[in-house]
Amino acid sequence: VLEDGAAVTVAAAAGGYPVLVRRGLMAKLGELVADRVGEVRRWAVVSDDVVAPLHGERARASLDGAGLPASLHTFPAGEAHKTRATWAALTDDLLASGLGRDGGVVAVGGGVTGDLAGFVAATYMRGIPVVQVPTSVLAMVDSAIGGKTGVDTPAGKNLVGAFHAPRLVVVDPEAVATLPRRERAQGWCEAVKHGAILDDAYLSRLERDVAALLDGAADAVERAVRRSVELKAEVVGRDEREGGLREILNFGHTLGHALEAASGYALPHGSAVSLGMVLEARLGERLGASEPGTAERLARVLGDLGLPTIPPAGLGAGPVMAALERDKKVREGRVRVVLLERPGVVSGAGGWARPVDRALALDVLAEASREAGFQA
Amino acid sequence: VLEDGAAVTVAAAAGGYPVLVRRGLMAKLGELVADRVGEVRRWAVVSDDVVAPLHGERARASLDGAGLPASLHTFPAGEAHKTRATWAALTDDLLASGLGRDGGVVAVGGGVTGDLAGFVAATYMRGIPVVQVPTSVLAMVDSAIGGKTGVDTPAGKNLVGAFHAPRLVVVDPEAVATLPRRERAQGWCEAVKHGAILDDAYLSRLERDVAALLDGAADAVERAVRRSVELKAEVVGRDEREGGLREILNFGHTLGHALEAASGYALPHGSAVSLGMVLEARLGERLGASEPGTAERLARVLGDLGLPTIPPAGLGAGPVMAALERDKKVREGRVRVVLLERPGVVSGAGGWARPVDRALALDVLAEASREAGFQA
Repeated sequence: VLEDGAAVTVAAAAGGYPVLVRRGLMAKLGELVADRVGEVRRWAVVSDDVVAPLHGERARASLDGAGLPASLHTFPAGEAHKTRATWAALTDDLLASGLGRDGGVVAVGGGVTGDLAGFVAATYMRGIPVVQVPTSVLAMVDSAIGGKTGVDTPAGKNLVGAFHAPRLVVVDPEAVATLPRRERAQGWCEAVKHGAILDDAYLSRLERDVAALLDGAADAVERAVRRSVELKAEVVGRDEREGGLREILNFGHTLGHALEAASGYALPHGSAVSLGMVLEARLGERLGASEPGTAERLARVLGDLGLPTIPPAGLGAGPVMAALERDKKVREGRVRVVLLERPGVVSGAGGWARPVDRALALDVLAEASREAGFQA
Repeated sequence: VLEDGAAVTVAAAAGGYPVLVRRGLMAKLGELVADRVGEVRRWAVVSDDVVAPLHGERARASLDGAGLPASLHTFPAGEAHKTRATWAALTDDLLASGLGRDGGVVAVGGGVTGDLAGFVAATYMRGIPVVQVPTSVLAMVDSAIGGKTGVDTPAGKNLVGAFHAPRLVVVDPEAVATLPRRERAQGWCEAVKHGAILDDAYLSRLERDVAALLDGAADAVERAVRRSVELKAEVVGRDEREGGLREILNFGHTLGHALEAASGYALPHGSAVSLGMVLEARLGERLGASEPGTAERLARVLGDLGLPTIPPAGLGAGPVMAALERDKKVREGRVRVVLLERPGVVSGAGGWARPVDRALALDVLAEASREAGFQA
């Protein structure tokens, strides 16, 4: 069905899986699924109610057209619905539709849909196959790859979930054109992260392509999505369960998550990670682990993408530190941060993530907050 | 901590795990866990409110005594509480207690507790270790081994769940003495199944030991539990995810589950499987797959254990057939049943489970119901 060159393979304990990246793949979804997950007899397509009319119904029709009976199941859009209640309602929906152990789930949408529908599949009759069809930049370059699934609880994000590797990931970069410009920028943030930790040349390319990426220009989008997929696939293929190398993907996420939580999730994820990367790069410079100018370079490209690089006024260091201490990534009470050696290279000294002194983290945060105050 | 001979190893994709079987192990739980799951920093012991005062608090104290901080978390006893709501409440409890990614769960109790606490562990921050400490016969010989976890939904039993292999299973046969006699019989039903599908000599031993097993006599209990653990470990070690050999463990369960469901779960699981084994053995004889007398031999030992061998009057063939068709094990609409060649040997012809004609299954059910009618 598909010539080589479009497929990136992700190694996984339960057998590797292909990530296909090419414009126009959405129209071929049924054929691709029939070709690669042939043993599944019936499919449940899961989309939120915004993406369903844009892509979900087309996906269902494409499966049907390839001789694969498929039903469409929707839930209300937004992170607020990434909950156990929505998971239970979708599960009951699938049960009522008669989907059996020989069924599968196709997740069509952004990060919330992939995480939620992936968790439904992971726990449906103790696990049925899932195919990820990401339609947001964030999902394409990041969350659809690697098998993390889950939902939020009142105590925090992604606290309930499972690792459930997809059987297939189908990425059609044309879907990026259907996104609001602002949401595109949120997703490119993770692409910048991939460049920052693994590939300086890719970071440079992103710097040159900022305008095209924000416009959703097809060539630039496809090139960036493919490179990010390759980089993420390489990392999670080597360390599926986050015991080692996978930790580098948390660059910007320790302080990022803390900022996000301290804002009561008013700060969008991409914006929070943007701030987190700049702050963690500053931490690296202060510790002498990172080349001077590393934080500045990241701040420039993130700023060009329209992402924040200085914490919003009103987000004080105190609440951020408090959120930090509740984080899943806190081990034995120490704050763990991924540090860069320079753009494109993670500092490997002392493990991929290093325990950092709270006082220093607090100082970097406080300094950034003061700058925010001056600008406000 | 423990000399060899007490440990049976179960092979599993995520690394094998030991099942330790010996009287008095409960008192050594803390040492055993410290020795074998050393990387876990904090433990949450989960028990129902009946088992908690009998064994749960002792387990917690034993962990504490071995220098492992542990908290006790309870839920209301009974299959009616094996739900997503109880799972969510326990998860929230553990989150509120501050249990992190470096924590683990110890499930102390019967089958419901193992399934429920196992599912909490499987989905807590995408999976933390679980140690199974079964205290019912059913859990010791069956459900604590093999990694199946999950909860019921209004649409059926175990429809939501995950495979999550325990890191360690600790079986103290002395706990059997604390059970009501009736509950013991329910558990020995699965031991009879192990003999029936895999080991004629073991089945003979069980026949001789019926009185001792019902009394909870220490020697007989330990011997039977160990042999059942060995047999189950062998099967699930070869086929963790139920693609092949593991299916033989479903002997008696296709019709058993249907009877259980058709009774609105008034029929206890062991009783339902007892009936299921007799009926499926009859099916085997009718098909010429099983030696004549196979069903009769099973009916005798199950009857001696006080388990039913003829469907209760009022449970008609119609509702049972309807329940059968809703079963997870129905593939492409055919009823799949494990058939014996003779006691101790499964018929391997045509795969471990064979598609059986509905008309024949209905006829065997109807015949058994008529006998029930005559007896009533």
